[in-house]
Amino acid sequence: MSDHPEAPVAPVPAFEPPYYLAVFTSVKTQDLSGYRETNARMEELVQKIPGYLGMDHAQTPGGLSVTVGYFRDADALAEWRTDAEHRAAQRRGRAEWYESYTLHVAKVERSYAFSRTESAETA
Amino acid sequence: MSDHPEAPVAPVPAFEPPYYLAVFTSVKTQDLSGYRETNARMEELVQKIPGYLGMDHAQTPGGLSVTVGYFRDADALAEWRTDAEHRAAQRRGRAEWYESYTLHVAKVERSYAFSRTESAETA
Repeated sequence: MSDHPEAPVAPVPAFEPPYYLAVFTSVKTQDLSGYRETNARMEELVQKIPGYLGMDHAQTPGGLSVTVGYFRDADALAEWRTDAEHRAAQRRGRAEWYESYTLHVAKVERSYAFSRTESAETA
Repeated sequence: MSDHPEAPVAPVPAFEPPYYLAVFTSVKTQDLSGYRETNARMEELVQKIPGYLGMDHAQTPGGLSVTVGYFRDADALAEWRTDAEHRAAQRRGRAEWYESYTLHVAKVERSYAFSRTESAETA
């Protein structure tokens, strides 16, 4: 997504359950040196994980940031979780960039997508 | 949260799994008349659902909006899903406010919270 800033914004679609998602909610510190570069690198890396399905991100200016990553199964998510470069970025995040964060890892049981031109219920 | 706009922003904490979450990602239309009032009413209503745990929200200006609602169990979420006033708001949302949206309902298996002053792994 960072590679295509000109693309129209759209939510990640609904997939056929079951699949996994990781909700990462955070409030950042004032010291964001290196953050943008690391974040771009993480977006690049995660796309190489087999079973990675996509990511939604929103940030209220000066407020909460919410990122949701979608994965085909628990193995795909575990591979991302244990990636060495990702773990190093997490350590730096705790040391420098995040005032606080919460991670929720969950198995999707039901999903639904709507758009003005089409809609699809998957379960 | 809309009742306390002056409160410091913080992510909803990690709860003891299992619990449920609903990720709602959306892109809005240009016609948002009535949206703010309805949204405030929904925030008021959802807090009355037994088993409602909290909500995270972020919106990138002009871009994606991500809302994550947390519930103690599937029954609590079902009660919210079938609430008559909520369903009416959903219908109006599809007719007027949303260009597109996706809903993912998932059962949380693992969660973790970090803050500068404390951190806690719940599973």
